[in-house]
Amino acid sequence: MPELRDDGPVLVLDLGDDENRFSPDWMDGVHALLDTVVDRPGPAALVTTARGRFFSNGLDLEWLAAHEDRLLTYVERVQGLLARVLTLPVPTVAAVNGHAFGAGGMLAMAHDFRVMRADRGYFCFPEADIDIPFTPGMAALIQSKLTPAAAVASMTTGRRFGGPDAHALGLVDGTAGPDELVAAADARVRPLAGKSRATLGAIKETMFAAAVTALRDTGVPAA
Amino acid sequence: MPELRDDGPVLVLDLGDDENRFSPDWMDGVHALLDTVVDRPGPAALVTTARGRFFSNGLDLEWLAAHEDRLLTYVERVQGLLARVLTLPVPTVAAVNGHAFGAGGMLAMAHDFRVMRADRGYFCFPEADIDIPFTPGMAALIQSKLTPAAAVASMTTGRRFGGPDAHALGLVDGTAGPDELVAAADARVRPLAGKSRATLGAIKETMFAAAVTALRDTGVPAA
Amino acid sequence: MPELRDDGPVLVLDLGDDENRFSPDWMDGVHALLDTVVDRPGPAALVTTARGRFFSNGLDLEWLAAHEDRLLTYVERVQGLLARVLTLPVPTVAAVNGHAFGAGGMLAMAHDFRVMRADRGYFCFPEADIDIPFTPGMAALIQSKLTPAAAVASMTTGRRFGGPDAHALGLVDGTAGPDELVAAADARVRPLAGKSRATLGAIKETMFAAAVTALRDTGVPAA
Repeated sequence: MPELRDDGPVLVLDLGDDENRFSPDWMDGVHALLDTVVDRPGPAALVTTARGRFFSNGLDLEWLAAHEDRLLTYVERVQGLLARVLTLPVPTVAAVNGHAFGAGGMLAMAHDFRVMRADRGYFCFPEADIDIPFTPGMAALIQSKLTPAAAVASMTTGRRFGGPDAHALGLVDGTAGPDELVAAADARVRPLAGKSRATLGAIKETMFAAAVTALRDTGVPAA
Repeated sequence: MPELRDDGPVLVLDLGDDENRFSPDWMDGVHALLDTVVDRPGPAALVTTARGRFFSNGLDLEWLAAHEDRLLTYVERVQGLLARVLTLPVPTVAAVNGHAFGAGGMLAMAHDFRVMRADRGYFCFPEADIDIPFTPGMAALIQSKLTPAAAVASMTTGRRFGGPDAHALGLVDGTAGPDELVAAADARVRPLAGKSRATLGAIKETMFAAAVTALRDTGVPAA
Repeated sequence: MPELRDDGPVLVLDLGDDENRFSPDWMDGVHALLDTVVDRPGPAALVTTARGRFFSNGLDLEWLAAHEDRLLTYVERVQGLLARVLTLPVPTVAAVNGHAFGAGGMLAMAHDFRVMRADRGYFCFPEADIDIPFTPGMAALIQSKLTPAAAVASMTTGRRFGGPDAHALGLVDGTAGPDELVAAADARVRPLAGKSRATLGAIKETMFAAAVTALRDTGVPAA
């Protein structure tokens, strides 16, 4: 399950040592740790990473198969988490330590910046191959962070990008060796940890308003 | 007139050996061949190219001059063809063999990818010079495929870009010699020919929803 | 105060030799000179630059502090000037001679092209540091000219970019030495000075319709 390490002012969100799929419990855990990040007194910045072969392998298809009647509320929760990270009122960077597939890749895209391990792991949107089209919110999130050419190359092909290819296309902002990955990510946000959260949150809400609206509108009636 | 060559699973749409302007008959021909592409059983991918000096020289101004009263329905048909290619449910690539001007350039932009002949031919949006501003749909189509800097450089200047300049700016994804052009384009989509058409079509409809809406809304009342 | 030099067909708008902040009088002066540019008979193109250490240091915070009750109409006027430059019906380029901060940077972004002095001066959006979030119109303007990665890097960090860094990120289209700056900017628009103003204005209005709408909608009731 997700854990948080305090390397003040940088907080390292560890998504886990497994496939780190978006199960309801896992999302609850991530939300609780994001509460800790946002509520931390004084400067704060977020590095999100994981241990092992996966950053995150995306939707929890096994849980979904067992709870088909809850598909819409599940998608709503996934998109709510993505919208929250997209507009988190602290500087954020994903340290992509391994495979980032589907919603796992979207979670990385929701961060302000991305650094990817250079030697192993794939960044991939497999939607075109697994016959799960992007929701409007998920597409808007990805497209809000990529050039049109990078969006077409990654969203319509199912192609798996290793670190150097992901960097060349602009899916990530940089690459690093496995032992330098978290440090390279840390260096991008540590100098920014002192920003006003109200201001930074407002800036991201304004910049990504269209994607946030699409992510929060899943067609699920309000309770 | 347009022709189709079956190099299964890749289908090569040949726009013709003339200026390949968007006459009503030519558009009918292209639509009929796109029907064949989409209806082909089994895997399919589209390479669009032409013979001679032109990929396409754009709107059929001569036909328009003789049918001024049909301007709106003509524009509606041009935009309908562009919207169809933009969301075609198979992988698509334009092999730009020669001049791609105006709507000819837009047709190339509507494809998922573009490869341009390196040694001859120009990619050009002459709208700023011929006093025909882009319609909202045409502008949205082009901007949905380019970085803002590339959109300004190509849409406000009337500049003619040879292959290497077009590649440097990102108007096309690559260049090739004249004898390797179709093969270079083919190589980009052949590995993708097996994608589900329903899924790929849905992905493109979602990614380019704003441009499609603008292209399909030409102010012409529905019949 | 702003001045205009006629180097026909190029008109050089000199923003001043001070900090060139957006005071009401300064904006009145710029608008009057833009009238001269647009009304000039025959071909015309605009180079905007300044003398000294600043291109423009942005909002006139001193004036604002003394006129707090006029904040909304002030913002409306700033955004109106930005919208006007964004859609000016002649080719435009900013020759960024020195610091371009906040609204000063936005004014540069509103031009079709930007060339920046290579050796001195910073391009900076300090909003994240001075606790003034971007208005929706200002954010839309900047984002209409930048890749998503460049928008995040410049709008969420408060980072100051020297010329080479600004060029590498795409904030500006080129750099030049101090003595070649205006000539380098001039060379980008002089060949374009003969475009039809009606056509070029219509093209920019269409391309940047979303940003223009956001800039012109400041929540201030019409008089």
